[in-house]
Amino acid sequence: MRESELLQHVYDTADGPTRQVPIPPGDDMAMLLVGEVPVLAAVDQVIDGRHFDLDTTPLELVGRKAVTRSLSDVAAMASHPVALLVTVALPSDFGHDRATALFDAMRETARYYECPLVGGDITLHRDASSPLVCTVTVLARPGPAGAVTRSGARSGDTLYVTGRLGGSLGPDGLGRHLTFEPRISVALGLAENLQTRLHAMIDISDGLGRDAAHLARCSGVRIEIDAARIPCADGVDWRRAASDGEDYELCFAAAGEVPSTLAGVPVTAIGRVFEPGPGTVAPVEIRVGAESIDATRLGWEHRS
Amino acid sequence: MRESELLQHVYDTADGPTRQVPIPPGDDMAMLLVGEVPVLAAVDQVIDGRHFDLDTTPLELVGRKAVTRSLSDVAAMASHPVALLVTVALPSDFGHDRATALFDAMRETARYYECPLVGGDITLHRDASSPLVCTVTVLARPGPAGAVTRSGARSGDTLYVTGRLGGSLGPDGLGRHLTFEPRISVALGLAENLQTRLHAMIDISDGLGRDAAHLARCSGVRIEIDAARIPCADGVDWRRAASDGEDYELCFAAAGEVPSTLAGVPVTAIGRVFEPGPGTVAPVEIRVGAESIDATRLGWEHRS
Repeated sequence: MRESELLQHVYDTADGPTRQVPIPPGDDMAMLLVGEVPVLAAVDQVIDGRHFDLDTTPLELVGRKAVTRSLSDVAAMASHPVALLVTVALPSDFGHDRATALFDAMRETARYYECPLVGGDITLHRDASSPLVCTVTVLARPGPAGAVTRSGARSGDTLYVTGRLGGSLGPDGLGRHLTFEPRISVALGLAENLQTRLHAMIDISDGLGRDAAHLARCSGVRIEIDAARIPCADGVDWRRAASDGEDYELCFAAAGEVPSTLAGVPVTAIGRVFEPGPGTVAPVEIRVGAESIDATRLGWEHRS
Repeated sequence: MRESELLQHVYDTADGPTRQVPIPPGDDMAMLLVGEVPVLAAVDQVIDGRHFDLDTTPLELVGRKAVTRSLSDVAAMASHPVALLVTVALPSDFGHDRATALFDAMRETARYYECPLVGGDITLHRDASSPLVCTVTVLARPGPAGAVTRSGARSGDTLYVTGRLGGSLGPDGLGRHLTFEPRISVALGLAENLQTRLHAMIDISDGLGRDAAHLARCSGVRIEIDAARIPCADGVDWRRAASDGEDYELCFAAAGEVPSTLAGVPVTAIGRVFEPGPGTVAPVEIRVGAESIDATRLGWEHRS
């Protein structure tokens, strides 16, 4: 059983866009109408042994990551976070102090990003051997350019990324994948600045190659990335920068002028968007000199 | 470590009511403002070995119950369901067909109650021995009497319950706790009919005694229930009807005339609301002839 097939089942059997749900599941967040007001919503989960290792990761960082991953989805829609709801299922011997420390880390992270916790549940597993499961539901409202989806990129756009990519998961399991800053301010700054010229956006969780391919497929376009332009984290080459996951930076397609820095974060043009020609090999190709590489083959099957 | 103490920590450390979150966590649902529009939200989880037993419960009923529990919270606020988001964490050997059957049961139940699924995640545990965990987040909008909380009961009100109580958990683990009808239509009918006379409401999950006590404490009142008036399910005496949990019927306090049936469901007056006098022994007392019993001692520490 492959997880990606299960998730595909979730999306394939969802209803298409309706008046009540103008953006159905499958993007970073869905959008629904409450009365006539648009509300964005998404849910995500992190599990011990899959998304982090409790033996080596401080509880505070587990709680922080559960929340910041969801806030990164809000950034990807160029939207404002509004509220969070969390659940925690704990091994039966987890202990009161550790349980409250984990919960407090989630709430403090939520507060820091001005996104109050409005619901929570803590339950114990029957056994001590059952793993910690955290879920986070995030609610948001559209930013100054509306809810920016993955599906609006068009031929002639330039492709950009924020920050620097690669190496977020350290050899000890720690690293930037636990401490990253969700790019909410950058996304809202872009939306304010570019308005309708901000055509499509996604956050990089699976790796640049795979996430750019999600964006290309949803938009029905082809993307070429110039390997030499990819902004790499220290000690990381372009290949890892394009394939490592959990950067939680933004990748977006836009037309016209784009600021080179926003909220102190570099914004780098790395590629171009084209019509999907009849000879298209892959939705995203990375150009390295005269060579062209299928970027979707660089990504990884996601820790998350 | 007691679960109830952990949940108390969640509520105690939540912010009080604010302009942005007029109803904070601690009621059946919280209420927040998105722009100026009120949105209700709540999250809940069900875990194999705690809330159901996968060995004896059909998957379809597990998925159904995960969703209907959350819809019962919407009914308790006399509100309209708007959307659901669900997560499923599965043992690694669960199998594709069973995973999609579980998910489909959740989606079909959501559709049946006109509450579309707008977000979902399915993840595998690392091990085959780790338990199934489902979470459901539900969003709602206030009904015709606004969002009805637990805290508006006042001296002089009459206390009512819908349906018949007790015996929802059969000796084989099956029974009404899996197949109950969330009382959304009844709740909206009451709200339409009573408007501002519908003062406070809760759904019965912990048992009538304990849930009436939640309502009494939140409202700062004392409640007397007449044992002879409690509507009991077949083969159940008043003591079990007042203490068994997972009825998912409504318990509410209202002033003036109340219909005796709504949407085909009986509505029964079972008690009265008083000022909490200086000699008050318990927030809820059950009168049996000349005797008076502390109703909070009848309830159970919740399967859920």
